[in-house]
Amino acid sequence: MSVYLHDIPLEQAKTRFAEALRDAGIDGLLGEEDIPLDENALGRVLAEPVWAKLSSPHYHASAMDGFAVRASDTDGAAPTLPVSLIYGTQTTYIDTGDPLPLWANAVIPIEETEPLTETGAVDPAARRPYAIRIRAATPPWKHVRSMGEDMVATELVLPAGHTLRPVDLGGCAGSGHHKLRVAKKPSVAILPTGTELKPVGEPVGPGDIIEYNSIVLAAQVRAWGGEPVRFPITVDDFEQIKARVADAAREHDLVLLLAGSSAGSEDFSARVVAEVGTLLVHGVAVRPGHPVILGMVGDSAIQRFSDSAVRRSDDSAEGFRDTGYGLRNIPIIGIPGYPVSAALTGEIFVEPLLAQWLGRKAEEPLTMRAQLTRKVTSPGGDEDYMRVVVGKVGARTLAAPISRGAGVISSLVRADGIVIVPRGSQGIAAGEEVEVRLYRSPREIERTILAIGSHDMTLDLLAQFLAGNGSLEARRRLASANVGSQGGLLALKRGEAHLAGSHLLDPETGEYNLTYIRRYLPEVPVVVVTLVGREQGLIVQRGNPVGVRGLEDLGGRGVRFVNRQRGAGTRVLLDYQLSKLGMEGGQVEGYDQEEYTHLAVAAAVASGRADCGLGIAAAAQALALDFLPLFQERYDLIIPEAHYNSPLVAPLLGLLEDGAFREAVARLPGYDVTQMGKIVK
Amino acid sequence: MSVYLHDIPLEQAKTRFAEALRDAGIDGLLGEEDIPLDENALGRVLAEPVWAKLSSPHYHASAMDGFAVRASDTDGAAPTLPVSLIYGTQTTYIDTGDPLPLWANAVIPIEETEPLTETGAVDPAARRPYAIRIRAATPPWKHVRSMGEDMVATELVLPAGHTLRPVDLGGCAGSGHHKLRVAKKPSVAILPTGTELKPVGEPVGPGDIIEYNSIVLAAQVRAWGGEPVRFPITVDDFEQIKARVADAAREHDLVLLLAGSSAGSEDFSARVVAEVGTLLVHGVAVRPGHPVILGMVGDSAIQRFSDSAVRRSDDSAEGFRDTGYGLRNIPIIGIPGYPVSAALTGEIFVEPLLAQWLGRKAEEPLTMRAQLTRKVTSPGGDEDYMRVVVGKVGARTLAAPISRGAGVISSLVRADGIVIVPRGSQGIAAGEEVEVRLYRSPREIERTILAIGSHDMTLDLLAQFLAGNGSLEARRRLASANVGSQGGLLALKRGEAHLAGSHLLDPETGEYNLTYIRRYLPEVPVVVVTLVGREQGLIVQRGNPVGVRGLEDLGGRGVRFVNRQRGAGTRVLLDYQLSKLGMEGGQVEGYDQEEYTHLAVAAAVASGRADCGLGIAAAAQALALDFLPLFQERYDLIIPEAHYNSPLVAPLLGLLEDGAFREAVARLPGYDVTQMGKIVK
Repeated sequence: MSVYLHDIPLEQAKTRFAEALRDAGIDGLLGEEDIPLDENALGRVLAEPVWAKLSSPHYHASAMDGFAVRASDTDGAAPTLPVSLIYGTQTTYIDTGDPLPLWANAVIPIEETEPLTETGAVDPAARRPYAIRIRAATPPWKHVRSMGEDMVATELVLPAGHTLRPVDLGGCAGSGHHKLRVAKKPSVAILPTGTELKPVGEPVGPGDIIEYNSIVLAAQVRAWGGEPVRFPITVDDFEQIKARVADAAREHDLVLLLAGSSAGSEDFSARVVAEVGTLLVHGVAVRPGHPVILGMVGDSAIQRFSDSAVRRSDDSAEGFRDTGYGLRNIPIIGIPGYPVSAALTGEIFVEPLLAQWLGRKAEEPLTMRAQLTRKVTSPGGDEDYMRVVVGKVGARTLAAPISRGAGVISSLVRADGIVIVPRGSQGIAAGEEVEVRLYRSPREIERTILAIGSHDMTLDLLAQFLAGNGSLEARRRLASANVGSQGGLLALKRGEAHLAGSHLLDPETGEYNLTYIRRYLPEVPVVVVTLVGREQGLIVQRGNPVGVRGLEDLGGRGVRFVNRQRGAGTRVLLDYQLSKLGMEGGQVEGYDQEEYTHLAVAAAVASGRADCGLGIAAAAQALALDFLPLFQERYDLIIPEAHYNSPLVAPLLGLLEDGAFREAVARLPGYDVTQMGKIVK
Repeated sequence: MSVYLHDIPLEQAKTRFAEALRDAGIDGLLGEEDIPLDENALGRVLAEPVWAKLSSPHYHASAMDGFAVRASDTDGAAPTLPVSLIYGTQTTYIDTGDPLPLWANAVIPIEETEPLTETGAVDPAARRPYAIRIRAATPPWKHVRSMGEDMVATELVLPAGHTLRPVDLGGCAGSGHHKLRVAKKPSVAILPTGTELKPVGEPVGPGDIIEYNSIVLAAQVRAWGGEPVRFPITVDDFEQIKARVADAAREHDLVLLLAGSSAGSEDFSARVVAEVGTLLVHGVAVRPGHPVILGMVGDSAIQRFSDSAVRRSDDSAEGFRDTGYGLRNIPIIGIPGYPVSAALTGEIFVEPLLAQWLGRKAEEPLTMRAQLTRKVTSPGGDEDYMRVVVGKVGARTLAAPISRGAGVISSLVRADGIVIVPRGSQGIAAGEEVEVRLYRSPREIERTILAIGSHDMTLDLLAQFLAGNGSLEARRRLASANVGSQGGLLALKRGEAHLAGSHLLDPETGEYNLTYIRRYLPEVPVVVVTLVGREQGLIVQRGNPVGVRGLEDLGGRGVRFVNRQRGAGTRVLLDYQLSKLGMEGGQVEGYDQEEYTHLAVAAAVASGRADCGLGIAAAAQALALDFLPLFQERYDLIIPEAHYNSPLVAPLLGLLEDGAFREAVARLPGYDVTQMGKIVK
């Protein structure tokens, strides 16, 4: 079954769209308007250049509090040869900003004068003395802000296409403007469609999808200078969607048709576009995101359709207003339902269109060069937008790929940037240098602590405390990637993280972590600091319906287990405890089902996918599951010495001594904070 | 006369202010509020961390259109050993996003199945076939988006203090939130004061100042997440200002008291602050900007004052509402009147305060290393905020200091960034590397053409066309510094500009520019392209009241001349023509009065500072002056070959062939475009 008509390369799609906009005469500014020059002009885009109407200053102004003089009257004055100037005819007092009298051409600051009374006494405070005595000549125009010093009438103050910043408003006002001609804000209709969609705040059941793409797109449109209008959700009904599109096209400059997440719905959207206008593109070779639709809703098409709709929908209170003539051609973009695809479609297609209509440059993200931490493969036919976390570890800037799922909105929330794997490339090798289009400022990235290793809920608390509770200067971002304890040690070995969380039990010695550190990091001097002690046990469904009591019940009784991935400390613990019982992994149903975090294990149990899994108490409690405590273990932070002593990591170490943080951790079930901060090695 | 109580170092001022805020208990979040999760939440700052309330997906969802199956039922299927699964009991059709039936644990995409009718025929389109035939086994959980794949309930989605971006709204909604707890927006009262101030749009006479600082500050406050309220202008009346401050302090979280530009007004503000509260700081060692005032308006002080005001102002309709108890201590910042000082005071004091109240990090500008083009000196006692223009010329990034006047708002509009000369430093040497805090993106700076040399109005038109009229990709920013023709050639020699405008006449040969290029740039291969031919002549007052007819009238007839600076082409032309008349500069009154642009010369004449000056017709027309054409000259662009052939400069060269640009130039009086674009050398 062909879901997409035809995936065409991004550039080709853009060209086709650009041509249609040009044909419709809407490839430039959508319109202009005059707005008052006040703080509401902030962020608007100038439709015309601003030329100075007035010089600034618009008169010769004194730059000091002092006495206005004719420079030639001061000729010859010297410390031992004072010159006196009679008040009224030869000098007059003048405040900063006051206009210079026509006869004057210089100002002498008050502190360089000796104001004299009629008797010849000096009265330093006198503003209207009989005369002033000076002991230095002044050149003409000294201490005068001459007319036009700032801006001269007719000068260019700001070019068209400029986005107004606070100081620009000052420049425009100072040069005699009180209103500004700016580009009209494009009005963007956002139409979520899909029977399975539920508005934010409504209860959801299985199969329901929380509709938030319209909110993300609306916020994007607003951030990019457009005016978004969110429509209510339209169910998957061809006629209803068609009617909504026609309605939206009549009132707005752009229609974003958001399909539900089912692939079939994109077909729906394409049919709607084809019926009310012209379907230009159906499918773009971009990942994630390809089921993008680009089209134009034509006036004749709308008109035709509207007429028939009016005839057909006599019982509809809404019906269609007959707008008569003058309908424009309106572009329509069909936005894929997966949230990452939707947001990226906004960036790729909506932002440049709004920029064009506003007459400003399209936004250009900051970029940063970084080394990719691991190999990625990519389908050669697509331009692949890969989300990455970026951090500076020692001298190297690293980009670690994160989830590539189109449905994983959290990957965009967490992402520090995007690496584009170009069309035609099959992937990128580990260690290769890539260009990252940043979502965060380079400063924020410099302040990021990369923690790669075993996951523990304490790390989430740590992230929250690091982000919010310290002084502003001490704030850090903790970006953690969960690859298990051994994966973390290997990341440290490769110099790809500032620290690793680890709880690796040595079955020989009963010791935690040290054996593994000796094995994996023989050449990296590290400090081992205990974060927490915690209980490991079986996470089971509420009431423990399968009646499991311990690991011995996992073998051959139809109990479905969910495991952690190879290299995880919990996996090592499981294998160790199984072997003590004389059991092997193969005897455990679900031993091959691997999850990467404690919470994912709990979620597997909560969903009924498994009956139990080995994990920590906090994860069970989080999803309201039962927990059978079995073992105590130590969870350490392994920190290479170079980072341990760095200002970057210092606030994190400080938190280990922080009462509020310790309390917050102690409130999590199954955690023991008595060893927190203890240096093991 | 001591205008400032005492200039204290910036850090000390900040500390004193921070302590007062702490004492008043307002050094953290001002308040919190719940807001709906929609596009209006954009840019708000989280007051609490967002923990996932719901997993996402909140059920196991199919990732494909296809058939849900039990993986174990597919065991053994192979290309030559197909397995059939009966519809209804062993498989069921499922759309992308649909919940997996409880009994199923995998999905087989529809294109990998052979739907069968009851007769065993294959019907690829059947969604409800009798059975499906498959030719490969599937592992469990294949093509399933398992519960929590995106976010697991209880996980940290976003930390407190995070400023919400569009995708964050998706992350919060997807994890089960429909409202967000955010920091209350600080409400900021902005009080312009000064009898000489006129609101934007009102006619101004000499001594009047257009009041736009309140607009700039209001826009800054809004950009930084506060809610500004601009008050009407208060005249310089102690009691009225005091009343306004008390009023504002009662309703808002912060009062910005904007003084007029006269130095005396800062004393006024300090007295007001001292009377209605506590004056903490009066004068900060920052340049420009020192007359900053920091204080607290105390509740008791307001209350006391309000009571007396009510008693005193029986006839005032406004009066004072008696708010009873619970008045807070409110910080007040006295903002200097000079516009550059005002805007920088916003950046230095207001932004960090708002950041603190919102719980977010203070904004950190991007920085860039650059080489200073010329030596600057600085008073050692001040932290000096120096505005610079930044450009990349060849391999070097250069920062050229621009006007340092506190009144020159255009310098902030034009500035690409700020270089801070630290307290204790007497200045910075030419060529020294400095850190620039950027006002523009590095990309914009990469797109900047630096033109240093003679000024011509055509350059303003060129800047406008480069900024707005080309395709988005071809847009350039033209930053021009006016240092005269010879200064431009020297800048090219030092590698500090991409091109120089020049109209240097060789008195020996009558040739333009080439002689000087040979002299100044013997080792720099350049291309010389004609921009325009233009008339030079005398700019005189309307009606030519002094009756000047030519340069011969400048000697000893009391005609006041205004000159261009040494090195300017017009200056060379003047000296050449004077010498042809057998005259010398010393004979011309005002020969020493130097201006840096044609427009500044015209402004000098318009203001009555001079009777005439040599310049171009366009400048005379701009200020409605008369013009006596005397000479024809050629104005060329001198472009080093390396830049001439660069993609950076290409759009500029393209414009020289552009009909619309030529027309716009030809419309300027006294310009001849017939030679435009001609390569002279």
